Amino acid sequence: MLPEWVYRNCPEVSAVHREAAIARQAQLTKPTGALGRLEQLAIELAGLQATEEPRALRVPTIIFAGDHGIVAQGVSAYPQAVTIAMMANFASGGAAISVLARELGSSLEVVDAGTLAQEQMAGIVTDKPRNGTRDFSVEAALTPTDLAFAFEAGRRAVVRAKAGRPDLLILGEMGIGNTTTSAAIAASLLGVSAGEIAGSGTGVDAAGRAHKARVIDAAIARHGVAGASVEQILCAVGGLEIAAISGAMIAAAQARIPVLIDGFIVSVAALAAARLNPSCQPFQLASHQSAEQGHRLVLRALNVQPLISLDLRLGEGSGAAIALPLVRAACALHNGMATFAQANVPDRPA
Amino acid sequence: MLPEWVYRNCPEVSAVHREAAIARQAQLTKPTGALGRLEQLAIELAGLQATEEPRALRVPTIIFAGDHGIVAQGVSAYPQAVTIAMMANFASGGAAISVLARELGSSLEVVDAGTLAQEQMAGIVTDKPRNGTRDFSVEAALTPTDLAFAFEAGRRAVVRAKAGRPDLLILGEMGIGNTTTSAAIAASLLGVSAGEIAGSGTGVDAAGRAHKARVIDAAIARHGVAGASVEQILCAVGGLEIAAISGAMIAAAQARIPVLIDGFIVSVAALAAARLNPSCQPFQLASHQSAEQGHRLVLRALNVQPLISLDLRLGEGSGAAIALPLVRAACALHNGMATFAQANVPDRPA
Repeated sequence: MLPEWVYRNCPEVSAVHREAAIARQAQLTKPTGALGRLEQLAIELAGLQATEEPRALRVPTIIFAGDHGIVAQGVSAYPQAVTIAMMANFASGGAAISVLARELGSSLEVVDAGTLAQEQMAGIVTDKPRNGTRDFSVEAALTPTDLAFAFEAGRRAVVRAKAGRPDLLILGEMGIGNTTTSAAIAASLLGVSAGEIAGSGTGVDAAGRAHKARVIDAAIARHGVAGASVEQILCAVGGLEIAAISGAMIAAAQARIPVLIDGFIVSVAALAAARLNPSCQPFQLASHQSAEQGHRLVLRALNVQPLISLDLRLGEGSGAAIALPLVRAACALHNGMATFAQANVPDRPA
Repeated sequence: MLPEWVYRNCPEVSAVHREAAIARQAQLTKPTGALGRLEQLAIELAGLQATEEPRALRVPTIIFAGDHGIVAQGVSAYPQAVTIAMMANFASGGAAISVLARELGSSLEVVDAGTLAQEQMAGIVTDKPRNGTRDFSVEAALTPTDLAFAFEAGRRAVVRAKAGRPDLLILGEMGIGNTTTSAAIAASLLGVSAGEIAGSGTGVDAAGRAHKARVIDAAIARHGVAGASVEQILCAVGGLEIAAISGAMIAAAQARIPVLIDGFIVSVAALAAARLNPSCQPFQLASHQSAEQGHRLVLRALNVQPLISLDLRLGEGSGAAIALPLVRAACALHNGMATFAQANVPDRPA
């Protein structure tokens, strides 16, 4: 029921460029392995980008926003109107991701992939099948047609971004209620109870978290989607911005563009994408370990290790943006350091 | 026996600016606490810099290099000539810290604080009382006069850096053998056996590490410096570049300039500085947790928590330079984000 392109194979990691990067790291003027994870990151990027000079210079950020019918069940600490207000804040430059994008010299596109906004907003791309999802505690969040539209919206955003020949992509999200939606998707995909995965989101307390978990477990049982197909899960308890991100990730990987995954919500979208099309998984690079309870579980399922762990839990792509300079450092060191021979530095005795 | 200024009080953290920063963080358009450690960092910097706008823009890097007589005991994986060769590599732009300093727009000064170099080298400040330390397995590494000179060299480097009105300082080191020296200082200061603290350095194996620990324990016993004064410990088993860094840290803190501490060796210099003059300790900010075994112990003694942990073990100030963008992000977010009122975003119900 999803468009045919979703299942198309992504390119393979270039073994030749990976090997060349490993050989280069061994010749740089430092003790073998002394740059730790940054060496691995440069090697991985070289293979993914199929290049001798891995780069993370042009890194557009795309934020997908959506509203969630499940908010009617009192699962969020903030009022639903915040989704639209924050979209405006992204566009006018006052949000965390706006500040970070400026600092990083990164372009920022905001896509209304399904908020309750009735009208086109200034500085925002509107690309949605409907305003908000249905309340998944009483009915399916999305129809198959809604879901397919969201995947196409994700792909369209990547097509726009490709014009700037990106080295890497940051995908972010905004949507009051979307940690509940994400926890429902993750619990269904991983076959765990919601209590293991539902976190505080924007700041509900322990009682709020328990309520959230009950709402999710009841919905999963109602829709019968524990262990169901990804498509069935996303229709039953999904979100438009989350589906758009899954679509964008697959489209990016198909174009050999790695994605720096953000926090819990984007990681759940990454997991859905990887389950739909496993060939996109190598292009998913972890950025940070968030404070949101379920994130660790989802990152483990993705088999990725985050670069930083700073108790961030903001979303918007902010964690990925904060980690981006580490990827840039890895590339700069790989490409810019002298070799032992060039610098005439004695290497250790063989 | 150290110069009088070493013991002079550093300015206090500004409680007014700290409180103002806490209040501002609560008004920014994000869930309370959602920027985690970066919020704390901005608040801490505001108090240290006594400003409403904490900054990490101008961050000069100073590398102090020194050679170590203890290398005669076979404690290092690399030949001693690497110290001088790497100084040249710093100056000509091919080393990791050279690449990082360029990326960060940071100035880089290299100080020969005590290498075996017989002549003044191009692009390097020579400021040393002697060429290399004595082999501390047979005699004291430094005389009190040598030690005082190294502290003054550190202070002089800070005085030069102050001309550029730095927001923060990165201090780095180079010296084949200096993980052995640092482990000897740390073991003496912390009263632990060398086996707990001596690591692989540039890459010795398990047998090499055991040998290193035996050499250190024997030297500490020979000089009788377990639990001795910092001055006695630094003379017995210290290093010129390490003493220069301790001096630079105290001089920087006295001028209200926080220092982003690097890996194991710089952290040991920070510990010595904090023991000599506890009022400098708040100005020591941790950057990374290195792969070098003893680093965790020393960071715990300094009561600081690193921002990143990427298995780095290179020195040169590289770990601090890699973490600097996180400090910059913390400042940019603190200063640049809109408040709920400015962006007209509904805050959570009180």
